[in-house]
Amino acid sequence: MRGVVMHAPGDVRVEERDDPRIEQPTDAIIRVTATCVCGSDLWPYRGVEDVDHAPMGHEYVGVVEEVGSDVQNVQVGDYVVGSFMASDNTCEICQAGYQSRCVHVEVMGAIGTQAERARIPHADGTLVVTPGEPAPDLVPSLLAASDVLGTGWFAAVAAEAGPGKTVAVVGDGAVGLLGVLAAKQLGAERIIAMSRHADRQALAREFGATDIVTERGDAGVAKVKELTGGLGAHSVIEAVGTQESMMQAIRSTRPGGHVGYVGVSHDVELPGLELFFSGVHLHGGPAPVRRFLPELVQLIWDGTIDPGKVFDLTLPLEDTAEAYRAMDERRAVKVLLTV
Amino acid sequence: MRGVVMHAPGDVRVEERDDPRIEQPTDAIIRVTATCVCGSDLWPYRGVEDVDHAPMGHEYVGVVEEVGSDVQNVQVGDYVVGSFMASDNTCEICQAGYQSRCVHVEVMGAIGTQAERARIPHADGTLVVTPGEPAPDLVPSLLAASDVLGTGWFAAVAAEAGPGKTVAVVGDGAVGLLGVLAAKQLGAERIIAMSRHADRQALAREFGATDIVTERGDAGVAKVKELTGGLGAHSVIEAVGTQESMMQAIRSTRPGGHVGYVGVSHDVELPGLELFFSGVHLHGGPAPVRRFLPELVQLIWDGTIDPGKVFDLTLPLEDTAEAYRAMDERRAVKVLLTV
Repeated sequence: MRGVVMHAPGDVRVEERDDPRIEQPTDAIIRVTATCVCGSDLWPYRGVEDVDHAPMGHEYVGVVEEVGSDVQNVQVGDYVVGSFMASDNTCEICQAGYQSRCVHVEVMGAIGTQAERARIPHADGTLVVTPGEPAPDLVPSLLAASDVLGTGWFAAVAAEAGPGKTVAVVGDGAVGLLGVLAAKQLGAERIIAMSRHADRQALAREFGATDIVTERGDAGVAKVKELTGGLGAHSVIEAVGTQESMMQAIRSTRPGGHVGYVGVSHDVELPGLELFFSGVHLHGGPAPVRRFLPELVQLIWDGTIDPGKVFDLTLPLEDTAEAYRAMDERRAVKVLLTV
Repeated sequence: MRGVVMHAPGDVRVEERDDPRIEQPTDAIIRVTATCVCGSDLWPYRGVEDVDHAPMGHEYVGVVEEVGSDVQNVQVGDYVVGSFMASDNTCEICQAGYQSRCVHVEVMGAIGTQAERARIPHADGTLVVTPGEPAPDLVPSLLAASDVLGTGWFAAVAAEAGPGKTVAVVGDGAVGLLGVLAAKQLGAERIIAMSRHADRQALAREFGATDIVTERGDAGVAKVKELTGGLGAHSVIEAVGTQESMMQAIRSTRPGGHVGYVGVSHDVELPGLELFFSGVHLHGGPAPVRRFLPELVQLIWDGTIDPGKVFDLTLPLEDTAEAYRAMDERRAVKVLLTV
């Protein structure tokens, strides 16, 4: 089959990979109908993380082609969406809602879903079957649910966005923008999107942002405080993962408020004393997308939300190298790959 | 009046200080009937924090002697207990339960309650009147409510201790021990106290600990995991404030679990990537004791809890230097000073 392999930073190729096969009786094989490039794929692309001939991709929707002998909830022909972490959804950690830390977790990124087919471990626990074959215009939104929507949603839940709350969002990538959408759906009263890009500001407003702050760092913190009576936001979503963005998020939050952080940390060290006196709640990490998937699929199916709008470029799988370039150069927020 | 002044690290003296007076119409003056030495007082005593002729003490119970013209809830003659942070209890932050970060907060430690009298700012918001003059055996417990009980309680609440939960407690000082008591009161199913001192282990068991772990650091983490099916505790209370204790707390918590940290951070830097992948909730800081005080006073008054047991040495105010020495040398868990 054709699949994406990152040979080295900056060197993304579409080439022949071995067809996946059932390895465990709990596996399924899906034919991928759409996949995409994640902001986190840019870390190795930019050389911030090591990479050496790695299959790429962890977001996917598709059709089940084969199931292992123990698979019960998923059938051949089902249209499915799953999270970037495969999970059994039955262990104590899964049952508590932390499927991304399932005791049997498998990382889809190591399997690589930027490909024609993919093996899905723990198919019963990982995959959610859609109510039917989706209309083409729903596919981008369902694909978004696989990671960026689920991650933005988790960030908003972790930040305890809700009625009466002012939510600030640090980061205007797909996750940050969908954090805005999630905060809106969760009933937030006021949503401050922090962005200096006109196109992203526009999408943030479409998703529910009530205020835009263009300042960053300390100036951004000062602006959020100015908008919140000097106190800071109740809830802050962090969707970048740098020292600056984490400190901006923590400092933008009022005492007793909540920071939901989902940007994968890179060279972040949180100063203990400042964190102590901040009095904030801090929660985040790899999003347990599976917790939210059934609800998100339904919201998409019903047309209540349209998270697929974060895809501003669509390319065929064969052009994946260009997809990475476009995101690296910020010419695209997020690129959908048709398979 | 007589009051304690720390001239320099290790140099604690009881000497004449100016009598306090009403400075704001919202102030009250109390005659302190009992005060004590806090674990956090040992940081400057040991030279870890700077100190130069500072009045000391922030825990207190006493009788109101004078009130400012705007004070309404407190009368001369009332027996009162208050938090180590004076707060108006009416601002938005106070109303959300974070009185230790009140927008008008005043730090009682800067006033110094290891003294015969003390000025209490924001008396209406800060002080809680007891149901009457307490019997002498209730005084230690009411004094504990002023900080160590309230702080341990906040840690247990921040760690979401409750029915069905396994709670681990890092730190066997007064706050850690009262974290055990709080976890028990909040309904925790299993409480793991981490201590290597027989007397503190005994008190931990009396307060409700079901298991004792004597190992520290990585070995302590391994032991907690062994006791929790490899997953870690649901809730971990951190009551020390060092890098080792914070990492021990985070690593002892299962994904999705809660760390409540109340040890004042000293030279702590939290590694972002490890925190990210830990998936824990982190909340703590200077405890909003005032939030819990009315309930804690009632529990003490009714004889439901006896947190005063953490005081294992009682000395007159004049012997405060010996009180510091006894705690510094770990001859005492916590010293009550009679005034």
